[in-house]
Amino acid sequence: MITVLSGGTGTPKLIRGLRQILQDDEITIVVNTAEDLWMSGLYVSPDIDTVQYLFAGLLNMDSWWGIRGDSFETFHTMERLGYTEPLPLGDRDRATNIVRAEFLRQGMTLTKATEKITKAYGIQATILPMSDQEVATYVELDGGILMHYQEYWVNRRGNVSITGVIRRTRDNSQLAATSEVITAIKESDGVIIGPSNPVTSIGPILECAGVRETLQEKFTIAVSPFIGNRPISGPAAALMQAWGYAPTSYGTWEVYKDVVNMFIQDTRDTEIEVPCAHRLDTMMTTEKKAESLAWDLLSYFPWK
Amino acid sequence: MITVLSGGTGTPKLIRGLRQILQDDEITIVVNTAEDLWMSGLYVSPDIDTVQYLFAGLLNMDSWWGIRGDSFETFHTMERLGYTEPLPLGDRDRATNIVRAEFLRQGMTLTKATEKITKAYGIQATILPMSDQEVATYVELDGGILMHYQEYWVNRRGNVSITGVIRRTRDNSQLAATSEVITAIKESDGVIIGPSNPVTSIGPILECAGVRETLQEKFTIAVSPFIGNRPISGPAAALMQAWGYAPTSYGTWEVYKDVVNMFIQDTRDTEIEVPCAHRLDTMMTTEKKAESLAWDLLSYFPWK
Repeated sequence: MITVLSGGTGTPKLIRGLRQILQDDEITIVVNTAEDLWMSGLYVSPDIDTVQYLFAGLLNMDSWWGIRGDSFETFHTMERLGYTEPLPLGDRDRATNIVRAEFLRQGMTLTKATEKITKAYGIQATILPMSDQEVATYVELDGGILMHYQEYWVNRRGNVSITGVIRRTRDNSQLAATSEVITAIKESDGVIIGPSNPVTSIGPILECAGVRETLQEKFTIAVSPFIGNRPISGPAAALMQAWGYAPTSYGTWEVYKDVVNMFIQDTRDTEIEVPCAHRLDTMMTTEKKAESLAWDLLSYFPWK
Repeated sequence: MITVLSGGTGTPKLIRGLRQILQDDEITIVVNTAEDLWMSGLYVSPDIDTVQYLFAGLLNMDSWWGIRGDSFETFHTMERLGYTEPLPLGDRDRATNIVRAEFLRQGMTLTKATEKITKAYGIQATILPMSDQEVATYVELDGGILMHYQEYWVNRRGNVSITGVIRRTRDNSQLAATSEVITAIKESDGVIIGPSNPVTSIGPILECAGVRETLQEKFTIAVSPFIGNRPISGPAAALMQAWGYAPTSYGTWEVYKDVVNMFIQDTRDTEIEVPCAHRLDTMMTTEKKAESLAWDLLSYFPWK
């Protein structure tokens, strides 16, 4: 049994490689939910969707979000009617998001709703939202003004100077991992922190009460999402700096250092040296390369 | 200028005929909203949709609801995921309903939201929700238990014995027509009460504060939805009886008698005589027959 901490970009590529080696039912994914949002009356959980569509064999692997070959009738008709949805959803993708919202409105937890949906998609892996609380990431602008991360990244395309990054739960309660997440980590042979954005994808998971302490008891290996000061994908550099870390593998290691037993730095990453990092090719441009990286990671595991 | 009071079945067929004679911008439709409901995070207004799709040239005229040739990707995917929507929406139809809900969530009135949507569809007619209040129809069961009309009609298929029919606004305030509705009626050359269900479609409009009094000042002509004790379409008989009226043209006339100057009874309706009713063929099985009925109705109008 292994547990992977994942966002919506980077790590799913690694999961694709892991699936070539392990059975799906040997894999638990703890998924970031800090980018979730209510939109058009439905509950969008972008990282859960990417991970579950990957396991269901439905993922659009050109964009790494949404369902391959999905139609956009509703989205385009809404545009014609004068409403452009913040995130464009395909018609089948929309169904997932409506059903999830409906389950939540019925009083189900996100964990339970996700379990029902993944079962309906015939998924054998366990996909766990990091938390059942609604939580969002905000960037801090000059003067302490907070801006929702979606506004910052999707609408402003990151073209705003930021000085901080924080998480807020909807009711201002302390963010906590679910008991399912804590149990999954405890029962794993080891944990992989995937090459997702440390600030917006992995950071939220590590901030959930209980996660860091539990990881410290387990063999944990992290894969850097940076090569040099360039993230492999997504908006990481400005966010890392606003968060108080260098936008590099070294900065990433600093975020993870109290929980990881091993840190993987790309072989090409020559400028910034992370002490004791293992060097591997982390550019998963093909399924074969993802499988190769997965194989190396699993070879380090202290399998029972 | 004419104003038509409409539900989602019966009257739209008559409107189709009126459009062959009048320009769309000479027609105002006051639409029943007592069958509206929040569903799957969107706001469904079945009668508004039927009327607006009719004017937009998009209506599916086999079923008289939804958009012709619409796809059902979202609906079918949701079914697969274990959630069957109470009313099946097509993908383009869904867009209308999401946009309406989004406009309402932004604080717009239903009247304003409908205006924006009808404009976007290029509709020249004025389509007015009867009220901006959320209101629902309930049937009363033995012992005074209330059941939502949707539950009664859609889920139970009307197979429950009922003793009454009432309307309830969401906040228990008195149901009132919008000022736009009152003005439209006042400025009309005359009003047609279409052959829709008197209890669930026309009744709610007449119950809106201001409507009956305003109709009494205008030339108003009603078309019976009954031939014998059989409604032309929809669930009228049991509802009429529970409401305290005979399920016939005579019962319908009783509901309308304080507001109508003229009452149209079908030529075939031989059993139950309505005093002073004009006899016309009200079976609008073709566009030509609808146009013929519309022509006759308009010929009675006191045109200015």
